[in-house]
Amino acid sequence: MKILVIGGNGRVGSLLVNKLAAKHQVLAGSRNPKPENNSDNIEHVYIDLLSDVDAISKSMNSLDAVYFVSGSRGKNLLQIDLHGAIKTMQAAEKAGVKRYIMLSSVFALQPEHWKESFLSNLTDYNIAKHYADLYLTTQTQLDYTILQPGALKEESGTGKIEINVTNPGSNSIANVVDTLDSILENDLTFGKVILMHDGDTPIDVALNQLR
Amino acid sequence: MKILVIGGNGRVGSLLVNKLAAKHQVLAGSRNPKPENNSDNIEHVYIDLLSDVDAISKSMNSLDAVYFVSGSRGKNLLQIDLHGAIKTMQAAEKAGVKRYIMLSSVFALQPEHWKESFLSNLTDYNIAKHYADLYLTTQTQLDYTILQPGALKEESGTGKIEINVTNPGSNSIANVVDTLDSILENDLTFGKVILMHDGDTPIDVALNQLR
Repeated sequence: MKILVIGGNGRVGSLLVNKLAAKHQVLAGSRNPKPENNSDNIEHVYIDLLSDVDAISKSMNSLDAVYFVSGSRGKNLLQIDLHGAIKTMQAAEKAGVKRYIMLSSVFALQPEHWKESFLSNLTDYNIAKHYADLYLTTQTQLDYTILQPGALKEESGTGKIEINVTNPGSNSIANVVDTLDSILENDLTFGKVILMHDGDTPIDVALNQLR
Repeated sequence: MKILVIGGNGRVGSLLVNKLAAKHQVLAGSRNPKPENNSDNIEHVYIDLLSDVDAISKSMNSLDAVYFVSGSRGKNLLQIDLHGAIKTMQAAEKAGVKRYIMLSSVFALQPEHWKESFLSNLTDYNIAKHYADLYLTTQTQLDYTILQPGALKEESGTGKIEINVTNPGSNSIANVVDTLDSILENDLTFGKVILMHDGDTPIDVALNQLR
């Protein structure tokens, strides 16, 4: 498959690009040239989320899937995390890409949880992610999956998670990356919003519990 | 009619409250007590756009219409202009209010115009208004009208405007207030997004051109 990772230089994106490159041709999309990578299957593509839908769409020719794992880390939530994200959905539809996988945040679609735990310090972020996720689920015809992990930790992965979680937990970045990778070709994840944190269930077993 | 004006103390809101009070019972909604007003038909009601939908909904009992004319003037776009606005839509639906009139901004629903004229300095604001307007038109069953004027000027009103405008112009606040007032009971405005700037057509004539 030929896959674009938007935010390919980020904490999640750089690991995801390398993971996917074991099996796929990967375009690492970002404003800056790619860092060193470990595979001939990886190519850098220039994507600026501040540009318009047409410009973004031109980077999406003959793709099989798009991942959105970009984020402004609070610095430009309206233009990057909200509107930038939605422009990539519109660009994907314009380019005829069907498969779109969004990295979101736990309970982004459930404001009633936004005062729990660490989420209480992330209201602006939650709002940006909320309306991006809402757009994806209601205003597009994409075959989407939205992955909503809790706090991201720089820890080694366990390969084990829980989904359908009821409280905001934490996740190793490696587990999030492995889950994003496993989502790609699992039909059960199409049209689903998956909440997760680290846990005791192997990733594929957890995803196969989806109905 | 009994009407709630959210943002009742603002530049537009304070004039609108007084205008509406000539014919209606008006609740001026804001976080702060009402300033002096010129009518027994005006009552202050506490509304905090940072609170949740249920709390906001409690201020909406037996209303005939809600106006949203609040704004953070760039200081809290995500929580006030975007999410705050949408919570008032959800609150209105919860309270059984059908009529909802939104003060928006010219071309808020048309990003292809956001680089024109003074709009080029308002991208964050345009994004916030965009997704609030989009929610109102696609995710609610409200009898909405969205009024989208251009730049607001502290000038005396002429009573004359243009709608269906093709460029971002300017408006006296008085003309915007008079148009908001005229919209209330004009069925032609239901379900419409009305772009405007000051012009040569009497407000009611202009509104009656809507199809």
